[in-house]
This record gives sequence, C-alpha cells and structure tokens, in this order.
Amino acid sequence: RRGAWLGGYRGGLAWAGALRLNVHPLCMVLAMVFLQGDALLAFRVFRTEPKRSAKALHALLHGAALLVAIVGVAAVFEAHSAGGVAHAYSLHAWCGLAVLVLFTLQWLLGLGLFVFPGAGWALRGRYRPLHVFGGVALLALSVATSLLGITEMLLFHIRDTYSKFPAEGVLANTLGLLLVAFGLLVGYIVTREDWRRPPLPEELALSMDFKTLTEAESPGGSQ
Amino acid sequence: RRGAWLGGYRGGLAWAGALRLNVHPLCMVLAMVFLQGDALLAFRVFRTEPKRSAKALHALLHGAALLVAIVGVAAVFEAHSAGGVAHAYSLHAWCGLAVLVLFTLQWLLGLGLFVFPGAGWALRGRYRPLHVFGGVALLALSVATSLLGITEMLLFHIRDTYSKFPAEGVLANTLGLLLVAFGLLVGYIVTREDWRRPPLPEELALSMDFKTLTEAESPGGSQ
Repeated sequence: RRGAWLGGYRGGLAWAGALRLNVHPLCMVLAMVFLQGDALLAFRVFRTEPKRSAKALHALLHGAALLVAIVGVAAVFEAHSAGGVAHAYSLHAWCGLAVLVLFTLQWLLGLGLFVFPGAGWALRGRYRPLHVFGGVALLALSVATSLLGITEMLLFHIRDTYSKFPAEGVLANTLGLLLVAFGLLVGYIVTREDWRRPPLPEELALSMDFKTLTEAESPGGSQ
Repeated sequence: RRGAWLGGYRGGLAWAGALRLNVHPLCMVLAMVFLQGDALLAFRVFRTEPKRSAKALHALLHGAALLVAIVGVAAVFEAHSAGGVAHAYSLHAWCGLAVLVLFTLQWLLGLGLFVFPGAGWALRGRYRPLHVFGGVALLALSVATSLLGITEMLLFHIRDTYSKFPAEGVLANTLGLLLVAFGLLVGYIVTREDWRRPPLPEELALSMDFKTLTEAESPGGSQ
C-alpha cells in the first residue's frame, strides 16, 4: 500500500517546473502525513514491546516529521521570496501554519510531560487524552491542508483544462483521496478501543484511584 | 458563537455574482458542518434525557442534513449544466461525493440497526463503534471539503489578487479556520470519555458478557 502510494506520489512530483517549489509538497506530505501517521501507530504496532521503546519511536518519528516539515516550509518561503509573491496569504497557508505551531507545541508538551521524568502520574494522566485527541486532530488537519495544497497547485497550473479531466488532474485527485484513506486508516487503528495498549499495572492502579475519586460526582467513565 | 459564525458566513455569501452557484456553499455548510455537527452532539447535550429522544433528534438532524445537502448538490449540478461546465472533475467534488455516498450509507445503516427494532443487541454493539468513528470521520471530511470549496471559489474569482490580502480573501480564510474550529470542538466533545452518556443497565450487562467472552483471547479492552 505504501509502495503504491509513493509510486503515485513520485509521479505527482512531475507536476510543475519550478524545482524548489516541488520540494514543498514532497517534504510536507512525507513529514505531516507519513511520518506523523507512522508516529501515531507506534503504540499500536509495538504494543507488545516495552512502552519506553514505543514512546522513544513515537517521539523520534514526530521529531523527524518536524525537521522535514521545516525544510518543506523553508522551500516554499524561499520560492515565494524569489518570485516576489507574498507569504502565507492563502487558506492552505493559514491551515498549514496553524498545524505547524500546534504540532510544535504538542511535541514540546509531549517531551516535557511524557519523556522527561519530572511530571507525576496524575498530571500525565490528565494530559494524555488531550495529547491523543490533539494528535489525531493534527493528522486530520494535515491531510486537509495537503488537499488544499493539491487544489491550489492544480488551479494555479491547469485551471482552464482541469474540468476536462486531464491525466494530471485525475492523478492529483486520486492522490488526494489516497491521503484521505491513509488518514482514515490511521485514525481508525489509533482510536479503536480493543487495539489499545494494555495499561501498565501502575497506570491501572492510578486509574482505579482516580475512578473512585471521581465516581461520586460524574456517572460516566466506564465503557 | 453560532451567531458570529453565521454572521461571517452571510457576509461570505456576497462573494460571487451567479446566484444559483451561491446556494451551494450555503446549503452544504449548513447541512454537512452545522446540522451534522449538531446531530453528533445530540447524545451529549441531552445525555440526561431518555435515550429514545436523543436518538430521534440525532436521526432527524442527520435526515435534515441529507435533504439540505441534496438541494445544495442539485444547485451546483444545475449551475454547471447551465454554464456548460463538466460535472465533478475537481478534488473538492470527489471528496464531496465520497462524503455524500458514505453519509447516506451511514444514515441508512443507522436507521436500520438502531432505529428499527429488528436488530439484536449484539449486532448493535458491534456496529456502534464503527458508526461513531464513521460519524466523526465524515464530519472531518465535510469540513475538509468545505475548505477545498472555499479555496476553489477564491482561486476561480480572485486568483490574481488573492496574494495581496484582499478583504474577501481574508474573510474567506477566517471562515475556513472557524469551520475547522467548529469541527475540532464537536470532535472533542463527542470523543471525550468522561462526557459519554452513561450506558443503560442492559447495555452494561451485555458489555460485561462480551468482555468475559473476549477477555481470554485478547489482553486489551479495559481502559
């Protein structure tokens, strides 16, 4: 599946002439869809490995995504400067910058609370659901931003022929749907309850305590 | 919040001249973002009301969304026919049609399994997580499709001035980010574990049975 997708994507790389601008979609899709998606899967794929290893892989993949994304963003800023075009005027750019800022924040908070040993169990337990929701939401918004980028690229380059179903347009649309499918697949795997990593004994003990503490006020919680 | 958003959207309606084409974004955002988002919230907002009522509201809001969306889609097909433009060539259209087909399927499956009394508890219990995931995913894809529509509209109408930050472009971008914010808010409210509707006694009994049955094979499950 990934091979087929990269094949499709490589073809997609031939879209435009300006080489520097082509670095942008490659880096961004690689970083924000692929590496980010794979990072989310780390806890599922390696659910029987030690949690430390899965966590390290998760943090490293996200770190790599951030680095590649910075290269990708630099490429488009460079290209805009060279072409005398204003920066960050489009909805695609606004969404992309929002993703980048929130992603960096989420990564730093994750490092600070989950990787460095300082944070206590209670704080980690309270931040965890927000971190998980944020991660899935950022992946979804990254896919959406990629679709916006594809649409912008097509309307800048083949606006007048797009409605005649040219090969380039059909290929790009298909690529867009494949990105959506990848996002849905990762989202489904990550949110499915039965595929959750079994909690460590100490986490279980904590969540029991927490449940006892909160059960008096709120009736929900148990699934 | 909703007032402010509709205000922004009404302004957004002045974008283009062709009146029939303007029916499309109004209907689609109303149906697929608003009505659909509110339908997802039915079980949360009315979590202390009888489940039958929340379910009826959920099904009716989705039904209304489907009707309004059909009007919206008809408007754009009419406009394209009148203008001699091919139908459904763009990534926006492909995503939108995918959403519409999956949404209709999801609504029919929901009616058949959850509203009509024929389906047994076990089948309902097995379909429920997929229905919930599908609902959130469809809302996300609907928001993404709206963003694609906004981008298409801007690049068709103000492609040459968009990079100069005209009021129309900034307004449309802001509207896009508000749609994203609405989607994130609904997604967060719907997926937060503590805000779940407390299960009915008979559901609880069933899920206990189910847990006992499956616990031997799979170690996951408990949260």
